[in-house]
Amino acid sequence: MNAPVDRMVGALLLPHPYVLFLGDTTVSGYAKTAFGLRDWAPDKCVGELRLAGATVTTGLDQLSAAEAYARGARALLIGVANPGGVIPANWRASLIEALEAGLDLVAGLHMRLADIPELAETASRLGRRLIDVRVPPSKIPVGSGRKRIGKRLLTVGTDCALGKKYTALALARAFKDRGVDVDFRATGQTGIMISGGGMPMDAVVSDFEAGAAELLSPDADPEHWDVIEGQGAITHPSYAAVSLGLLHGSQPDVFVVCHEPGRTEMLGTAGYKLTSVGEIIELTTLLGRRTNPAIRCAGLSFNTSALEDAEAAELMARESRRLCLPVADPIRGGPAFDALVASCLA
Amino acid sequence: MNAPVDRMVGALLLPHPYVLFLGDTTVSGYAKTAFGLRDWAPDKCVGELRLAGATVTTGLDQLSAAEAYARGARALLIGVANPGGVIPANWRASLIEALEAGLDLVAGLHMRLADIPELAETASRLGRRLIDVRVPPSKIPVGSGRKRIGKRLLTVGTDCALGKKYTALALARAFKDRGVDVDFRATGQTGIMISGGGMPMDAVVSDFEAGAAELLSPDADPEHWDVIEGQGAITHPSYAAVSLGLLHGSQPDVFVVCHEPGRTEMLGTAGYKLTSVGEIIELTTLLGRRTNPAIRCAGLSFNTSALEDAEAAELMARESRRLCLPVADPIRGGPAFDALVASCLA
Repeated sequence: MNAPVDRMVGALLLPHPYVLFLGDTTVSGYAKTAFGLRDWAPDKCVGELRLAGATVTTGLDQLSAAEAYARGARALLIGVANPGGVIPANWRASLIEALEAGLDLVAGLHMRLADIPELAETASRLGRRLIDVRVPPSKIPVGSGRKRIGKRLLTVGTDCALGKKYTALALARAFKDRGVDVDFRATGQTGIMISGGGMPMDAVVSDFEAGAAELLSPDADPEHWDVIEGQGAITHPSYAAVSLGLLHGSQPDVFVVCHEPGRTEMLGTAGYKLTSVGEIIELTTLLGRRTNPAIRCAGLSFNTSALEDAEAAELMARESRRLCLPVADPIRGGPAFDALVASCLA
Repeated sequence: MNAPVDRMVGALLLPHPYVLFLGDTTVSGYAKTAFGLRDWAPDKCVGELRLAGATVTTGLDQLSAAEAYARGARALLIGVANPGGVIPANWRASLIEALEAGLDLVAGLHMRLADIPELAETASRLGRRLIDVRVPPSKIPVGSGRKRIGKRLLTVGTDCALGKKYTALALARAFKDRGVDVDFRATGQTGIMISGGGMPMDAVVSDFEAGAAELLSPDADPEHWDVIEGQGAITHPSYAAVSLGLLHGSQPDVFVVCHEPGRTEMLGTAGYKLTSVGEIIELTTLLGRRTNPAIRCAGLSFNTSALEDAEAAELMARESRRLCLPVADPIRGGPAFDALVASCLA
């Protein structure tokens, strides 16, 4: 069973607020989805629900399904992803209890909620929804290339998993703080859960990839900004198709290159050297120009979590001089990030 | 009902001979499936079936479903693909009539025959088959980027529907005629219908696009050639995701650029100028180098069907001098085509 589709946005729209389900997880790295929700959508989270044995916590109130419902929750959101993306048998009683308490279920795992017969039966009997956010809407048109009204920013990367979602969320928040009319547009499961909608770009059939991106950021007010979460990398041997379809369909006016200094190889493809930021700027401009001739790089977002403060500041200042572009770490913020935001809006 | 799918290359067993269905099509570019079958599998085609309003023809005998059956046809093959790959409501009466006349239906569109209740019901009642050839294998891995043994050629294009399949078929045949160990690798519905196997690249989920191309041309003898049918264009605003995933996953040693002189706009996207052959050579080399640093352009394949003989010869000779590459029309053949084949094998 798929989520209802908004005809305007063509994206998943999720029931909320959520109670964040952590299962019996003991590895904090598996709970990135829950942490992302807590940090970026606190108003959509009424608390967390854990099983016996769990050691990971978001720090939010620990609730039962019934308590969560009483506090206004309308969905239980599975906030953990164990390796393989399965839903273990020992979670199922709690998920059924949540359905019985009046909550829909929201997940973004490989294993589909609706493929678990006990959940499917219970949901059907009670009129609850089982929403897998990795399932794209069923009617995505082929991309038209038509120029849409409004402004668009896309985060791109030198690789996967180095801060494209975080950067887009931080830029959208900064735009909003400056009084700009802005929407964050999610393209991956965590982003979709945070924003309550979006398009799971890597699950879309490739012929419709650009069309899906077009649907994600529809016509808007001329001064409105869509800040779009990037996916993969245009030079990633596995995922470049996703990145190029998203680039063409997003037709961004502005892009920001996300990079993790110190990373030397592409994730998951042995022997492939990381592309340089310069190459990514060049290729993104060259290819993005096809659907938006005015495309420009507004700067770089560095993930410097592995570096000391002084080292990070020195590196970013040096790269900024070399590339003649603002370079900032959105987690560190400060004047460098303000300069990046200003460059985006310039 | 789907056709049985071979684990490796999605080989299909199709009922034939066919009557080629053209619907009410007036755009010859949309009928490339019918033309491909007529030209590359003439022994499998007994005639064509058109609706009122159609202006496109294969030149084969125009038959009713009953006449086609009487001539030995065992399937009606939908030989047209409109944008989006839908089966319009005004085709359905004819398709039902074909089922009633004793024909199975074979299609390769995005919209599945079996998803149209009237067709599903009629087929089920009469014991006819509805075969959709655009069903990718169910377990496609993510691309690894690993270099595979054997040689690979990919046809690429300045647009859709201008001869990438024809060129690949003609090159594979020419390679074979010269004693080269070669396989044609089909990536679209027509190629799959002609060759009986392949990978429907535009129906693959985008995260697996490069992986699907890797599966299509597996490790082979070092002297073996896979001649791979290209899809879309790297600069097409709708379909570039397909083209880039196919390019990365094919890791071609050699590519041939397919082009139709005189075409000025991209198919299906109003206002988009056709990319020049020079740009396509440059972009394909730049992007293809990622998975095969030795990639090179072996020449150009021109679709000169709209030109007089002398005009075509003069144009191809001029372009060949300008680009310092062989330029040939595989349909015209001759020494120019021999030179293109020699350049591919050089």
